[in-house]
Amino acid sequence: MKLARFEYQGQLSFGVLDEETNEFITIEGDPLYSLANATDPNSDTGGFASDGTRIPVDAVRLLAPVIPRSKVVGFGRNYAAHAEELGNEVPGEPLMFLKPNTAIVGPGHPIVLPAESQQVEHEVELAVVIGKVARNVPADRVDEVIFGYTVANDVTARDLQQRDGQWARAKGFDSFCPLGPYIDTDYDIASGGIGCQVNGVTRQESNLSLMERSVGELVSYASSVFTLLPGDVVLTGTPAGVSALQAGDEVTCAIESLGRLTNPVVAAQ
Amino acid sequence: MKLARFEYQGQLSFGVLDEETNEFITIEGDPLYSLANATDPNSDTGGFASDGTRIPVDAVRLLAPVIPRSKVVGFGRNYAAHAEELGNEVPGEPLMFLKPNTAIVGPGHPIVLPAESQQVEHEVELAVVIGKVARNVPADRVDEVIFGYTVANDVTARDLQQRDGQWARAKGFDSFCPLGPYIDTDYDIASGGIGCQVNGVTRQESNLSLMERSVGELVSYASSVFTLLPGDVVLTGTPAGVSALQAGDEVTCAIESLGRLTNPVVAAQ
Repeated sequence: MKLARFEYQGQLSFGVLDEETNEFITIEGDPLYSLANATDPNSDTGGFASDGTRIPVDAVRLLAPVIPRSKVVGFGRNYAAHAEELGNEVPGEPLMFLKPNTAIVGPGHPIVLPAESQQVEHEVELAVVIGKVARNVPADRVDEVIFGYTVANDVTARDLQQRDGQWARAKGFDSFCPLGPYIDTDYDIASGGIGCQVNGVTRQESNLSLMERSVGELVSYASSVFTLLPGDVVLTGTPAGVSALQAGDEVTCAIESLGRLTNPVVAAQ
Repeated sequence: MKLARFEYQGQLSFGVLDEETNEFITIEGDPLYSLANATDPNSDTGGFASDGTRIPVDAVRLLAPVIPRSKVVGFGRNYAAHAEELGNEVPGEPLMFLKPNTAIVGPGHPIVLPAESQQVEHEVELAVVIGKVARNVPADRVDEVIFGYTVANDVTARDLQQRDGQWARAKGFDSFCPLGPYIDTDYDIASGGIGCQVNGVTRQESNLSLMERSVGELVSYASSVFTLLPGDVVLTGTPAGVSALQAGDEVTCAIESLGRLTNPVVAAQ
């Protein structure tokens, strides 16, 4: 099931994608917080309450499918070829960082290049959306706390990242975490292609199977440090091919069978 | 005005401290989000709606006065003597990091020592509570977006901080951000004493006037990177004297005229 959050005729709604008709079936409330009330999982809306309203996909403005109330947890250097391209090694322990929820934007929303940086780069990543309160979850049981998956762009000001030491600024600017278009609650993460295009030119092209640490290991590690809350997002690292964005660019992050996330790039006003 | 958040007879409430009678006057809702509705600022409750219920301070269980919906922003090395004691210099640019809101606990709540660290240290800090949506605020206008101040303990696993590079883990464990006891909306930050005692022995003792960068500069800087939201907390750095905590310790962080924040220390189960 693919879930979206969108604005339609001035109203914010959540909806389930009907891929046959290319419509959203609107549901009541935020699915992350109404999962326990879902009834028939085999219905059109996976059991989420709905009055059956259908809206064509093209008629809505998609928003980020989730805004965490707590954390966006990121992991660095989780694809060997990307670690290498920046002169780093895959770390012996997971390299974890935080992004603020104010960095999140949805599909189509501009990525704003801050004046402080001369080198803002795209990083396509598989994003894990947590569905349950989770602490010290073993790697082989993370499926029990994962709500679904979506596509992220872990936008990074590379020059500031290298200068600051701590990555809070370089990865934390407003608009530096596009997410979407959908949360897929059934996605099979075993072997999807993952890539990024800038103005139609392929910059990153890899496969989820090349992650050094699995989704299970990363989510388990994060949950050994922090309590994970429903809506928290875990970013799983980017493959090789990162490159600088310029005002006027259009960047598309895509993961096979999961979705395409496109954002224009603009200079700060 | 000093505002607290507490549990009393199973109910969560906010209250205004009456220092003459040592009682809380309960108010309706969260003051951070009802400021715009406050009427008479000269009333006992600063204009916040109240039915006048009074509860003795000793009868409640204090909670952290705020849980951010978005960010805890920290700054490192903002007192020269502390930078020096760890072999660092005061940085040329503010050294900013993020703590997750899941690290926040209130007065009296245990600080839990994780098994992964052998060196968990206290760091008393002045905490700024943001009251308005804020972006690119000049340093001389931050008062317009600050709701008030409280005391924080920026608990840090020093060994993991040095090992990890990124500080998300070392500063992000559950219980690593005690806050409280009150938010003081009138506090004068010019020259208060700031200190920390462990088991009654003074470990940190300094003065807010010794900050290298002012509250105005730090909040302005943070707002140049992120949109600050009501309830966001900005930590302003710790003075010299940090030391390791052991299970069984009691740690008190105090700022003159602002409050005393005491927490027991326990080992992870």
